[in-house]
This record gives sequence, C-alpha cells and structure tokens, in this order.
Amino acid sequence: MSVKLEGNILVTGSNRGLGLELVKQLAEKTRQEAHIYACCRDPEGTRAEALRKLTAQYPGKITMIKLDMLDEDSILTAVQAVSKQVGAVGLNLLINNAAINTPASPAPLSATRKKDMMEVYETNVVGPFLLAKMCLPLLQKAAERHSPEKDMGDKMSCRRSAIINVSTLISSIEKCPETFPVAQMYPYRTSKAALNMLTRCQAEDFKIYNILVTAIHPGWVRTEMGGEEAPLTTQDSVDGMLGVMSSLCNKDSGMLLDWEGNSIPW
Amino acid sequence: MSVKLEGNILVTGSNRGLGLELVKQLAEKTRQEAHIYACCRDPEGTRAEALRKLTAQYPGKITMIKLDMLDEDSILTAVQAVSKQVGAVGLNLLINNAAINTPASPAPLSATRKKDMMEVYETNVVGPFLLAKMCLPLLQKAAERHSPEKDMGDKMSCRRSAIINVSTLISSIEKCPETFPVAQMYPYRTSKAALNMLTRCQAEDFKIYNILVTAIHPGWVRTEMGGEEAPLTTQDSVDGMLGVMSSLCNKDSGMLLDWEGNSIPW
Ligand SMILES: NC(=O)c1ccc[n+]([C@@H]2O[C@H](COP(=O)([O-])OP(=O)(O)OC[C@H]3O[C@@H](n4cnc5c(N)ncnc54)[C@H](OP(=O)(O)O)[C@@H]3O)[C@@H](O)[C@H]2O)c1
Ligand SMILES: NC(=O)c1ccc[n+]([C@@H]2O[C@H](COP(=O)([O-])OP(=O)(O)OC[C@H]3O[C@@H](n4cnc5c(N)ncnc54)[C@H](OP(=O)(O)O)[C@@H]3O)[C@@H](O)[C@H]2O)c1
Repeated sequence: MSVKLEGNILVTGSNRGLGLELVKQLAEKTRQEAHIYACCRDPEGTRAEALRKLTAQYPGKITMIKLDMLDEDSILTAVQAVSKQVGAVGLNLLINNAAINTPASPAPLSATRKKDMMEVYETNVVGPFLLAKMCLPLLQKAAERHSPEKDMGDKMSCRRSAIINVSTLISSIEKCPETFPVAQMYPYRTSKAALNMLTRCQAEDFKIYNILVTAIHPGWVRTEMGGEEAPLTTQDSVDGMLGVMSSLCNKDSGMLLDWEGNSIPW
Repeated sequence: MSVKLEGNILVTGSNRGLGLELVKQLAEKTRQEAHIYACCRDPEGTRAEALRKLTAQYPGKITMIKLDMLDEDSILTAVQAVSKQVGAVGLNLLINNAAINTPASPAPLSATRKKDMMEVYETNVVGPFLLAKMCLPLLQKAAERHSPEKDMGDKMSCRRSAIINVSTLISSIEKCPETFPVAQMYPYRTSKAALNMLTRCQAEDFKIYNILVTAIHPGWVRTEMGGEEAPLTTQDSVDGMLGVMSSLCNKDSGMLLDWEGNSIPW
C-alpha cells in the first residue's frame, strides 16, 4: 500500500524502534520524489547500524542527520543542515518520535528522582518544542508552496505541512484511573500530558500558516521502550500511523489520535 | 465565615499574592488548634515583610518556613522542620501554590527559550512533585489518626489529609482553542497540564491511604502574576477556594475545580 505522504519528511529517534520502522516504511511507500531526513544521536555509532544499512538500500532517498534532542546547539545544527538541503521547497512533515521513559517500568513514585522528572521533560517536550520552533520557517515554506489543487476541500494535510508529535495513551489525564495501576511512570506521563498541550497550542498558533499539528499514540508496541509483552509489532503500528497521517485534515489538527485513527480524550 | 479546615496546613509561595491571602484567611477562619506552615524563599528578606507582619498578628498560629521549590535540599530541610514540629499528628493539608510564569505575558513562541521551558517546569511541577513525595509520610500519619466520626459518609477530606495543587483554567488542553489567543504562555501551559496529570496520578496513588488530591483554579486574580486587569481580588478568590476545599470529598479527588467548585475539563 502506498501512503499519501510526500515531499521532505523529518523523523527523530530513527535509529531504532518505531523511528527506524517509520523511516523504513516511508522509504518503501512514498514516491521517488519524497525525501526522508532520518535523525539520530550518533549516525556513525553502533546504535545506528540498522539505519545506515537501510539508508544504503535506498540511494538518494534518506539523509541521516545527527540530532540530540537534549542539546539545543545540536537541534540548530540539524535544522540548518536540513534547511540547506530542502532549500525553497521547505519541510512538509516533522515527526517528533524520539523520547525516553525513566526510571524503568513500572516506575513507582519511590524510585523517581528529580533528575528523571527533568530529563524526561527535556527530551520529550522541550526537544520537540525547540525543534518545531526552529523548523517553523521550513514548514511555512512548504505550506506556502503547496498547490491548492492537491487539496480535497481541506487546507491542511501531512502532504502540505504538518507536525506529528508521537504521544501515548497514558498521556490521557482522563484515562489515568484505568492506566495508572499498570504504568505509574510519573515523569513520562507528566511529560506526555505536557506534549499534548504543546500539540494543541501549536495547532492554534500555526493554523494561520495552514500547518497541521496532531498527536498520535502508536499503540503498545514491541520496542526497547514498549518491552517484549507488547501486543503490536513496529510494522503494524507504523503501517497504521502512516495510514492515519495520510488522512489527516483540518478537523484533526490539535487532536490526539491512536494508530487506528480513534480519538483519545485529554 | 469559618472554614471547615483544621490541623496542620502547609502553604507554599506564601509571602505574596494568593499564598499570602491563603495564610491570612486560614489564620482568621480556622479554629485555635489549626497551625499554618507558611513557606517562602526568604523569610528574612524584604519580600517577606507582609508575611512577617501577619505572623506577628497571630501569635503561635503561623510558622514561617524557608522553602525554595527549585532546590531539592531546601525542600527536604523544610519538610524535616515541619515534621519535627507536627510530630505524630502529621500534616493534614499541603497547598502547592508557588509558581512562576515566564517569559512575560503574552509570552509568544518567538520570545520563549529553553530556559523558560525548563525553569517553569522545575518550579511548577517538579517542586510540587518532590514536596508531595517528601510530605507523604506526614500526610499518611494525619490520615491514619483521623477519627472516623468526623466523616460524613466519605473517607477523604481536606480536614483529614489532602494535597491541593493550584492549577489554572489555561491548563485545560480541551479549552486551549478558547484561551490560547489571549495567553500563549507555552512554558506555563505545558507545566500546568503536567501538574494536572501529577494531580490525577497522586489521587490514584494515594487513595489507599485516604489522601485526597485535587487541583484548583483560583480564577483570574489581581496579583503580580495575574496583573492589574484581573477581575478578582485575592480576598474573593481565596474565600472561594477555602470554601471549595472545605467541601471536597472522595468524588473530587483527581479532579480540576475552579474557586467556585465548578469542574474544568482536562
Ligand atoms: N513502544 C511503545 O509501546 C510506545 C507506546 C506509546 C508511545 N510510544 C512513543 O513512541 C515513540 C517511539 O518509541 P519507541 O518505542 O520506538 O522507543 P525506543 O525503542 O526506546 O526508541 C527511542 C528512540 O528515541 C531516541 N532518543 C531518545 N533520547 C534521544 C535524544 N536525546 N536525542 C535523540 N534521540 C533520542 C532513541 O535514540 P538512542 O538509540 O540514541 O537512545 C531511539 O531512537 C516515543 O515517543 C514513545 O513515547 C511508544
Ligand atoms: N493570579 C492569577 O490570575 C492566577 C490564575 C490562575 C492560576 N494562578 C496560580 O495561583 C498560584 C499563585 O499565583 P499568584 O497569582 O499568587 O502568583 P504571584 O503573585 O506571582 O506569587 C507567586 C508566589 O510563588 C512564589 N514562588 C515562585 N517561585 C518560587 C520558588 N522557586 N520557591 C518558592 N516560592 C516560589 C513567589 O515567591 P517570591 O516572592 O520569592 O518570588 C510568590 O510567593 C500559582 O500557582 C499560579 O499559577 C494564578
């Protein structure tokens, strides 16, 4: 199945887990002209081996970019590199996927330190905040160049210009009574609730530019973060998420949806 | 009007604004046995003059405690001092009121730096998180000692053992489209959405101890933070909030209510 995504697409945390699978399926399923900026902390290191192999399989389609979400200078340097390569075309889709979850699951209160609260927020919220802020001119360029005949009534789409913030079901404050007993994770939960607020603020802030902003829950997925008991494979989760991204329009901006397109309450 | 609050009550950020008024009305409206721990960054400094005067007006009723929410050691030292004074009685009510909002209003994206995002979160979320964690044994003591004949059906109340996290209407992700145009404030909004998640997690986590945890929006109030255009006085806001706190019971734990008792969606 080909997905209706195109242009320049940036994915963070793409050396493993859902990020790696996102790059893989985007490379497979988008047309020749689409280009993927696959970001990771250490493109030369052993942890990026699978991503380097994937990049070699799709010559000219994937560019690896060094990006550490904890380092503001690194974010700026990465955006400058992408900016140079995309030029006047701009950036069509920014996928904020990189995240951490410490302390280790189930992460009760007693095991949670100040350092966890701060680092998880810095990685999961402040990183995506800064990256979106710095990418804004590139997203604006893409939004402006988009030819209106591509729209089906709606002005916004992931083809035109969009930010996808990868969130989680357990970001839902509403659903906390159901989810808390199995996953306490104070730092992660508070960070992802904040990421949802960021998503909705950005959706309001950027709607004048026709930039769509949506949060997506990938499901519970077998990755280093999700663990081995998780029911979903990265393949199925990413297949679902790319389908959802392909179909997003005006009404979805500022929402939290799961990988099957169902809305999750705040 | 006397309020139905009693025992040992701790208020953070009590040298000015809503915190100062909370201490004032608690001193006025509670019975002789109630004791207020009025926390501020610099009890000896010029910024605490009004609080020192208030303390002198109610001999034996108010204890000033040095507490900087940004400093983990300061939080620990403050809790140890309170613990020593309350002894086996424990702490009945912890009011997390201290907070900051930078950059200055309306705080657009362009003016918001990494430092703002981090410091606002550290003050508004991580401080209350650590303070509650360290106060938990004291809150548990108070919950255990509470005599059941005082309950009116419900097990939880602010008289028995409770945490009140002072939140805000603009913490509501749901209501963001209405509130964003007048108050962008990314760092503050994301921090208060996270504080709401913290509130709901704590409500789940602490319900086995019969500790109530509720978030309260004080209204838009004339303080340094609220500004001069705000419609509410600190007197009216605090009068409302103390009335609401007096009436909280099981069903209110894990909720966000305003100073008049109305529920606000997440
Ligand atoms: N798996 C699930 O069940 C699940 C459920 C709900 C939501 N999610 C969300 O889905 C997204 C992907 O999760 P995942 O399961 O694929 O996690 P994962 O397997 O742990 O992978 C996390 C990715 O983020 C990267 N990362 C972490 N900190 C970074 C930093 N400072 N700078 C740059 N990259 C950084 C990691 O790179 P390194 O290799 O350098 O550490 C890695 O590529 C996350 O946003 C997560 O919250 C996952
Ligand atoms: N005013 C409103 O309209 C409004 C609306 C919604 C919610 N709120 C909430 O109501 C609460 C009180 O606000 P306010 O209007 O009274 O604000 P304010 O007038 O600015 O007072 C803030 C208080 O917090 C203290 N504080 C700040 N950082 C601290 C730290 N690191 N350690 C210890 N204390 C610290 C300040 O102490 P210093 O003097 O040492 O700085 C001061 O006592 C806050 O949680 C705020 O978010 C207010």
